[in-house]
Amino acid sequence: MKSNALNFSGGPGALPATVLDETREAIVALPATGLSVLGMSHRSEWFLGILDEAERNIRELLDLPARYAISFLQGGSSLLFATIPMNFATRAFAPPEYVNSGYWSMRSSAEARRVCASRIAWDGTRTGFRELPMLDRLAVAPNAAYLHYVSNETVEGLQFALPEAKPAVPLIADMSSDFLSRPLAADRFAMIYAHAQKNLGPAGVTVALIDREMLARIPDGLPRILDLRTQIEHHSNYNTPPVFAIYVLMLVTRWLRDTIGGLAAMQRINEAKAQRLYGTLDAMRDAIKVHAASPWRSQMNAAFTFGDERLDRAFIAHAAERGIVGLEGHRSLGGLRASLYNAVTLDAVETLCDALTDFGRQHV
Amino acid sequence: MKSNALNFSGGPGALPATVLDETREAIVALPATGLSVLGMSHRSEWFLGILDEAERNIRELLDLPARYAISFLQGGSSLLFATIPMNFATRAFAPPEYVNSGYWSMRSSAEARRVCASRIAWDGTRTGFRELPMLDRLAVAPNAAYLHYVSNETVEGLQFALPEAKPAVPLIADMSSDFLSRPLAADRFAMIYAHAQKNLGPAGVTVALIDREMLARIPDGLPRILDLRTQIEHHSNYNTPPVFAIYVLMLVTRWLRDTIGGLAAMQRINEAKAQRLYGTLDAMRDAIKVHAASPWRSQMNAAFTFGDERLDRAFIAHAAERGIVGLEGHRSLGGLRASLYNAVTLDAVETLCDALTDFGRQHV
Repeated sequence: MKSNALNFSGGPGALPATVLDETREAIVALPATGLSVLGMSHRSEWFLGILDEAERNIRELLDLPARYAISFLQGGSSLLFATIPMNFATRAFAPPEYVNSGYWSMRSSAEARRVCASRIAWDGTRTGFRELPMLDRLAVAPNAAYLHYVSNETVEGLQFALPEAKPAVPLIADMSSDFLSRPLAADRFAMIYAHAQKNLGPAGVTVALIDREMLARIPDGLPRILDLRTQIEHHSNYNTPPVFAIYVLMLVTRWLRDTIGGLAAMQRINEAKAQRLYGTLDAMRDAIKVHAASPWRSQMNAAFTFGDERLDRAFIAHAAERGIVGLEGHRSLGGLRASLYNAVTLDAVETLCDALTDFGRQHV
Repeated sequence: MKSNALNFSGGPGALPATVLDETREAIVALPATGLSVLGMSHRSEWFLGILDEAERNIRELLDLPARYAISFLQGGSSLLFATIPMNFATRAFAPPEYVNSGYWSMRSSAEARRVCASRIAWDGTRTGFRELPMLDRLAVAPNAAYLHYVSNETVEGLQFALPEAKPAVPLIADMSSDFLSRPLAADRFAMIYAHAQKNLGPAGVTVALIDREMLARIPDGLPRILDLRTQIEHHSNYNTPPVFAIYVLMLVTRWLRDTIGGLAAMQRINEAKAQRLYGTLDAMRDAIKVHAASPWRSQMNAAFTFGDERLDRAFIAHAAERGIVGLEGHRSLGGLRASLYNAVTLDAVETLCDALTDFGRQHV
């Protein structure tokens, strides 16, 4: 018998059981309206309330200063990889700079190159994406349009520490896979964005936090839907938003606030999960290799391998017998990956660790 | 007690009750996988099967020639309003031409103007968007990049007849509000697109059918996510697609095929619904004014008014007592609107018509 609690997928990933229960009821009839959530108008009072609460909860969880606008977008990070340079890489500034720290940041900088001149501020290609730079020590042109990085590389299992200070150039972070997994000094950033399908909800919505000071830099004449001011001005309701995905995201933020107790509490849980898993992997270091070098190991995704494709596959089968799913590594790297997003419980991690230990005893 | 069956919203609109029931179960555990649909990987065998079946069902319902590619996109029609001219309004052709027949086509042509030179092939502004032109008789430059129109204007309640022949220039239609509501000679079109939240499913996914001949016209160098070839080449899985919205859309296409029996059957039901409603409105012509002139009345949306805002509001309250919701007119036009999308039953329309007749007897 499989269970959502044992879904270690890299995303779309596990969601909290109580959120799934509440969502299930809403499919046929929302208690508040008597109608299916799937048939609710995006102009209804009900949905305006959902948008408001989603925004308010994120603001409260992050203690986000009022100067940041929050908007809910479609198209995922992949669309923002294009729209961010379209909006902010203007002629008044030097080319934007990108940190190439793994699969996803490589995609972000490749897309930027199609839009504008850009510079690679740091490149981990040579070392196979096992390490990360210190953000605060990168040499970036003082008038660069912005510095872009991906805060957690889901494929390689690398995670940046938060920057220690607000950098001299606007800092833009794709936090798709670790947003709301830990507290965050958001005021060090010009823009933070995250698609939902890791820690926030189902695929189909992306949250963007933007310092309103940045909006003055956006050139006129962009297609309206690609101009980042548009959804801000229309409270994420310029065109029909993904109502259902935003509804579930709101429930997840409510769960973070009320059930978990906020981001400091969430961080403690995530630290315990990561320590348990990496402890198990390290104890098996003769048999298992973790991809990321130790200081940069991600709390969200552990990429590892038995160093033998047959053993990796055998472990996937072994784990599946215990109801554990989603352990296949990303197609670009192969091997195994366990994703420990917010909704994955410590109990689930214990089950995974026991499966690893047992497997090691039997097969390695 | 409200009921989804009596949701006449302009969209997101009603979905079939059996689809809602099946979706409800999938939220906690899909029978096929034991996992929540919201946590299913977009690379899983299960989801690849969903994408395949959604495409296959649409192809079968429309008897769509193999030369058309089908892709599932994010961003709604509003994003395609920008990406269509970015992809197809190239220098090898004369400017694209737009039919301005109502609120939504005005938005499409306004967005095109931000991207390229364009021409208005027909403009209904002077006559207040109560009539439509004959598509086959429009004077369009023979080397125009394309001719764009919106097949059903949801705000004004206007619907085009299908073109009688394949026009000389590529014909591109936004069919967001009448796609799969009737059979369609798709081979008269270069491209057809429709967001889901009218007849196909929840908000968050848009279907595009594109004649592969058109793909050779797309210029290189566009951001990959805005290049219409990208999702076609990646079978709608270039980046994480809106898994849940596509799943529900697939269930709706299955319902159309198996429960309704195809698009000819769907058309007969939609004709019966529209005849019943317009018959009632016409019988009350002393009290009620239908916005659209008779030959162009939409089978999907009837925009009408008692000619007095207080009476319109009183009718909304009268209808709400009978569980009828979603009758508010679009904010740009005011008045009332009843949307008769596929999932609205003839029984529901009967209930609405009875409410209209009763209200007329009591108040007018």
